[in-house]
Amino acid sequence: MPRASVLAIGNEVVQGRVLNTNAQYLGRRLTLLGYDVVLSASVPDRMELIVEILRIATDRFSSDLIVTTGGLGPTYDDITSEALSKYLGEEHVVNEEALEMVRQKYVARGLGLTPERIKMAMMPKSAKPIPNPIGTAPGILVKKGNKLFVSLPGVPSEMQAIWEQSIEPMLRNASQVRISEVTITVKGVMESVAARIVNKIVKEKPKIYVKTQPKGIELGSPVLDIYI
Amino acid sequence: MPRASVLAIGNEVVQGRVLNTNAQYLGRRLTLLGYDVVLSASVPDRMELIVEILRIATDRFSSDLIVTTGGLGPTYDDITSEALSKYLGEEHVVNEEALEMVRQKYVARGLGLTPERIKMAMMPKSAKPIPNPIGTAPGILVKKGNKLFVSLPGVPSEMQAIWEQSIEPMLRNASQVRISEVTITVKGVMESVAARIVNKIVKEKPKIYVKTQPKGIELGSPVLDIYI
Repeated sequence: MPRASVLAIGNEVVQGRVLNTNAQYLGRRLTLLGYDVVLSASVPDRMELIVEILRIATDRFSSDLIVTTGGLGPTYDDITSEALSKYLGEEHVVNEEALEMVRQKYVARGLGLTPERIKMAMMPKSAKPIPNPIGTAPGILVKKGNKLFVSLPGVPSEMQAIWEQSIEPMLRNASQVRISEVTITVKGVMESVAARIVNKIVKEKPKIYVKTQPKGIELGSPVLDIYI
Repeated sequence: MPRASVLAIGNEVVQGRVLNTNAQYLGRRLTLLGYDVVLSASVPDRMELIVEILRIATDRFSSDLIVTTGGLGPTYDDITSEALSKYLGEEHVVNEEALEMVRQKYVARGLGLTPERIKMAMMPKSAKPIPNPIGTAPGILVKKGNKLFVSLPGVPSEMQAIWEQSIEPMLRNASQVRISEVTITVKGVMESVAARIVNKIVKEKPKIYVKTQPKGIELGSPVLDIYI
């Protein structure tokens, strides 16, 4: 199975001002596409920490696909694209195709380009911009050797729109895996009792993954979700 | 500022079957306690990946405090405690104090100890168990040099109960920092316009952190949260 890492960039995520629903969405989609999601991480908007987590996802977690969310906007602390350039050792340049995408968005409203808006078109030199159907900042796609880097905006609706329109169709074409799954909810059985049975099944059928998740209270009113 | 990392252990988290609300809760609490949360990460229930992320949080992200959630339960894939022992290079042993905590929980219901239940009392040799007021698996506290490791259950209600009863009071005593924050919601101003003003403030007042978060649509009906 190819390995994937999901990286959320933003102080608001690590500091808990927002709930990272992007990580759940991407973890789910990647798993169902047949990816082994080995790491889901978030770091603050700081250059050295973003570069570091890109390096860790790639080298230490051997990811084939690295998807980042957040930090593509117009403000001073949106530096994901620049960090990606730095990590890849590429020049950070205005991408003409991306600039045209951004320009058209603002022109349609009778607005021009400013340094803050041009910034959203800056990318690693070898990057390909990905159209953002509902927002202004384009996504970023970089293929480097056999690794694929995808950077998406942090606003969930924009992230999902780009993912569904451009990224998932591209990845789906490359994947051969089919995943089936089912969740059973059981009441009145303690996890520490179910554990014995689950351990036996998993030993006998190594291709099947079984996970119990306690939803109630182990002692008193146990409710278990059993994910197979 | 002391640095903290928050690590969620569990396939269900990285694969997006559950939303990682623990990361938000802990990121928020740690930030308000004066910690610089440099990394929030989740990895699957696999020994080598858990040990790796513990190493990365400690060495590469220089965390003074490492808080893990998940993987303390009775099933075969609950291996956070064992991974912590492995990472610390300590023997993984039954902690007598923890065993007594677990025993009492089951005895109160007329139940005895089984291997699965005893497993929840196994910890690194130097660990101190932390009482779990509402669940069965105790938390784990290890002080190693000037680093503090805290392992909590993944069930949010249990995690929060242990945090509020034992961990936060302990950390609060050690902290001197006070944080003030306010969020202002602005309608009708595009982020790419606000960016110019924010950039100016941040340059002039380096101790103040200002972040704009788009909530509406940049072009059309812009709504901005400005966090100061």
